[in-house]
Amino acid sequence: MSEIRKLFEEPTIETKPIFEGKVIKVQVDTVKLPNGATATRELVKHPGAVAVLAVANDKLLVVEQFRKPLERSLVEIPAGKLEPGEPPAEAALRELEEETGFRASSVKLLHSIAVSPGFADEIVHLYVAEGLQKGEARPDEDEFLNVEAITLETALQYIREGRIGDAKTITAVYAWQLYTLTGQYVYGS
Amino acid sequence: MSEIRKLFEEPTIETKPIFEGKVIKVQVDTVKLPNGATATRELVKHPGAVAVLAVANDKLLVVEQFRKPLERSLVEIPAGKLEPGEPPAEAALRELEEETGFRASSVKLLHSIAVSPGFADEIVHLYVAEGLQKGEARPDEDEFLNVEAITLETALQYIREGRIGDAKTITAVYAWQLYTLTGQYVYGS
Repeated sequence: MSEIRKLFEEPTIETKPIFEGKVIKVQVDTVKLPNGATATRELVKHPGAVAVLAVANDKLLVVEQFRKPLERSLVEIPAGKLEPGEPPAEAALRELEEETGFRASSVKLLHSIAVSPGFADEIVHLYVAEGLQKGEARPDEDEFLNVEAITLETALQYIREGRIGDAKTITAVYAWQLYTLTGQYVYGS
Repeated sequence: MSEIRKLFEEPTIETKPIFEGKVIKVQVDTVKLPNGATATRELVKHPGAVAVLAVANDKLLVVEQFRKPLERSLVEIPAGKLEPGEPPAEAALRELEEETGFRASSVKLLHSIAVSPGFADEIVHLYVAEGLQKGEARPDEDEFLNVEAITLETALQYIREGRIGDAKTITAVYAWQLYTLTGQYVYGS
């Protein structure tokens, strides 16, 4: 996200650390509002993630996995958390290969998406993969997932049925459908 | 989201409450993995939210507001948290009117989006508003925002520039663009 505006900025008066986990940190900030009043903001810090829109032979690569917060499984595009210091484009290539076995010759950033801007700083960097070649999947030890390659029609049907239901995957399917209709992606400047 | 599957389910062995805030709750669950090993899951509980895709006279209603987790302002479609026991469709009508002054004769559910399924249970119910009529905005006391009505071209430009950058708004703009190209929304079944 390039153009950073700070309309109605809320300067921090105090930060109270609450929790430092393996993935997230939680803090409560006291802020000053534009009218001079104060308010509290409950904030979740997250390392950020990458996700990959990968279409091979007119089929989208997706993985079904269990999502504990929702107590259900979801069909999603390949994705994963950023490791400390890891460049997002490298993480995208890594996650794609680990989860699906496909290698991309390159990835191009489509959007850096703030998935839950009300309380979390998590950004999901969504890449489009190019030059896909089939290799072998190597999921993490504690990662259980089913890989599928689905047509656009199936992807839209999965959205209607709720089997696809997360923000990055709906965004990716829409971007892909728009690409089939307009011949282009809405890449950032 | 209708079709609930539980592939690779992770039964809870223990739940450790961490934080109970005004908006979010945090807990750490110990779970059993499909291979019998155990793992921990850091979970954020959120009441859920609604968002509204409202197009009046070929322009999308959006609001710019400060997002403390990101330390920047974003241009987003009207949205807000669900109040306890509030039906999502009523919340959508309420938030639309409070933030923009526009009343809709009805709203139709487009998607229930899991915005951050890795750690949060937050679902954003995205509605399409129909029968819009201009009234008067009444934002909450501690809510500071600028209302704008933008063309599809401007919305796509805002995405490219990063002024629009959150999941629900990118999804809404894409859904709107697809509607202009195909004449329909991808409503759930």
